[in-house]
Amino acid sequence: MTAVPIFDERSPVTAPSESEDFSTPLRPVAPPSAELRVQASELQRSLTKPVGSLGRLEELGEWVSACQDRCPPSPIVRPRVVVFAGDHGVAAHGVSAYPPEVTAQMVANFTAGGAAVNALAGVAGASVRVVDISVATDTDPTVSAYKVRRSSGSIDQEDALTSDEVLAAIDAGRAVADEEVDGGADLLIAGDMGIGNTTPATTLIAALTDTEPVAAVGRGTGVDDAGWIRKTAAIRDAMRRARPVVKDPVALLRVAGGADIAAMAGFLAQAAHRRTPVILDGLVVTAAALVAEESARGGREWWVAGHRSTEPAHSIALRHLRIEPVLELDMRLGEGSGALVALNVVHAAVATLGEMSTFSAAGVSTETTTT
Amino acid sequence: MTAVPIFDERSPVTAPSESEDFSTPLRPVAPPSAELRVQASELQRSLTKPVGSLGRLEELGEWVSACQDRCPPSPIVRPRVVVFAGDHGVAAHGVSAYPPEVTAQMVANFTAGGAAVNALAGVAGASVRVVDISVATDTDPTVSAYKVRRSSGSIDQEDALTSDEVLAAIDAGRAVADEEVDGGADLLIAGDMGIGNTTPATTLIAALTDTEPVAAVGRGTGVDDAGWIRKTAAIRDAMRRARPVVKDPVALLRVAGGADIAAMAGFLAQAAHRRTPVILDGLVVTAAALVAEESARGGREWWVAGHRSTEPAHSIALRHLRIEPVLELDMRLGEGSGALVALNVVHAAVATLGEMSTFSAAGVSTETTTT
Repeated sequence: MTAVPIFDERSPVTAPSESEDFSTPLRPVAPPSAELRVQASELQRSLTKPVGSLGRLEELGEWVSACQDRCPPSPIVRPRVVVFAGDHGVAAHGVSAYPPEVTAQMVANFTAGGAAVNALAGVAGASVRVVDISVATDTDPTVSAYKVRRSSGSIDQEDALTSDEVLAAIDAGRAVADEEVDGGADLLIAGDMGIGNTTPATTLIAALTDTEPVAAVGRGTGVDDAGWIRKTAAIRDAMRRARPVVKDPVALLRVAGGADIAAMAGFLAQAAHRRTPVILDGLVVTAAALVAEESARGGREWWVAGHRSTEPAHSIALRHLRIEPVLELDMRLGEGSGALVALNVVHAAVATLGEMSTFSAAGVSTETTTT
Repeated sequence: MTAVPIFDERSPVTAPSESEDFSTPLRPVAPPSAELRVQASELQRSLTKPVGSLGRLEELGEWVSACQDRCPPSPIVRPRVVVFAGDHGVAAHGVSAYPPEVTAQMVANFTAGGAAVNALAGVAGASVRVVDISVATDTDPTVSAYKVRRSSGSIDQEDALTSDEVLAAIDAGRAVADEEVDGGADLLIAGDMGIGNTTPATTLIAALTDTEPVAAVGRGTGVDDAGWIRKTAAIRDAMRRARPVVKDPVALLRVAGGADIAAMAGFLAQAAHRRTPVILDGLVVTAAALVAEESARGGREWWVAGHRSTEPAHSIALRHLRIEPVLELDMRLGEGSGALVALNVVHAAVATLGEMSTFSAAGVSTETTTT
């Protein structure tokens, strides 16, 4: 049987196999247009401002141009955030400040429009979709079509998923990305919701970057000292279980990930294959990005990091991905919240590159060459 | 004759004097409502997110609540950026990468809507006003009603202004702030435009913070090494001239400032007296803020720093004012550009505090108390 690349756009949406061979080796993702990036950079230099004076905005505008294959870039008019919700067995072991039932309650809150993601999407002109991948209880049918299972296993003691469930979750994420791109989304954001989800996210990052647990583990939703110790112990145990499979992304997701994180990995990789720019959010989404990049090499060219959260493992993952975050606002909420704040900065970047007058059109003198 | 506080809301808009006594001592600005800040903080804790998880957004939302004396805060619906344009004699001495005529050309560009400030205002829902305070040439009558003089003096060799001109410029800034607040502005941003203006701005900051010129001088619009050396020499000379008057804000603006910066100082102080929140922009506006705070103590409580520019003196001024910037995007354009990008973050802060459901309303469980 021939190995089919999991994160490749040409593989079927429902991968018909139980074999983990599918994960290796995966062909790289084609990058955004280098030619358009150069064109955008040239346009940038002709606009009525000192060269480089918009700092990070200039780079972001050029990145959007390269992703869109258009210069000047078009305004981002249909940005979409997809919140992937899932529970984690490890949450029963006192690793979070909140009880597990909050996951399902927050799914209802997202649907009702009362969460941070809803308010922040409104400001940034984005719309919100919620996808129940692995919430422990039943959720509304409007959000549960892609449900893979109820909760993921407690990774300190058991596998999060079966191999088939990993593949199903990745495919679910890819299918959601396809639906969104086909539906007109011109920028995608993944958000996370799941009590306990910083435990597998931190495990994946620490395992992939060979980091000691104590250097990687944060407070998540705000766990106390005793909870932090329990969480660190759980991550240490999960890392021990993960070590033999760290080179195999699908096996790693099976042993120490979760269905929600697998789905996000598929979503992020597929967004890249569909040539759609992505703003990464915080720890959990970036863990999924790190796993995805292991397989779908080059996906990172399609992703910017919206912000740097207060979680230590998030910074470790960003460094490993060589992605510099746009914002540093000490956020640590998830849901796509940091990415949505950063989306405003991307709008600003696109507007300046797309709307400003050139020196010649505005009759403004350029730099003096004599010194 | 009784000394009338310059930055006090009760002093007349046109200060009828040539005496510098007016600048000292000035009564402090009344702070935003401490009571409403507490209410907003309590509301913040009741919303469906872990306590503190929105990081800097939470603090910004509470600040807007305190400024508005309302909880939840109202959305910022009429934010306004006022670009104060002025030329500087020192620009003739090779301290900038651009020729002085660019100031007037950019004023026309602002009016035509082709500059960065226009594009960024559009994204953030703000409107733009341009005020010619001291452009070297004639500008359109729609922007020149408050013109104090043509250019300011070359501060390395002569005073920037007369005392009367300082007072007229401060009053112009105050009058503009009054007009904007009376016209319904619910948040104000000052922007700067003036070739050579980072030279007086850096001089004022270095003088007020007792900083060596070489530690404070940046590249401005992008001056080359030879220009940087000329700029540093000019600032050193201007600082020597400023030293005797460093304790007297009006005299300091006369000797080493400029009409545009004096107007911005008046504008920022008056915004605070009118209980209107302000987002500071970069080096030049923050220099004006630093001077204003010397007289209108407590003004800083009404100002947040939109961003940290790449100019060293900007960071020095922010540290001195004890204001932490919202963004760090390596911007260095002026015009209010960094503040306008930060305005999007303020919108996000207000939206989360104003729109999110509480735990009880959404039926979401709160933190577990057992550990």
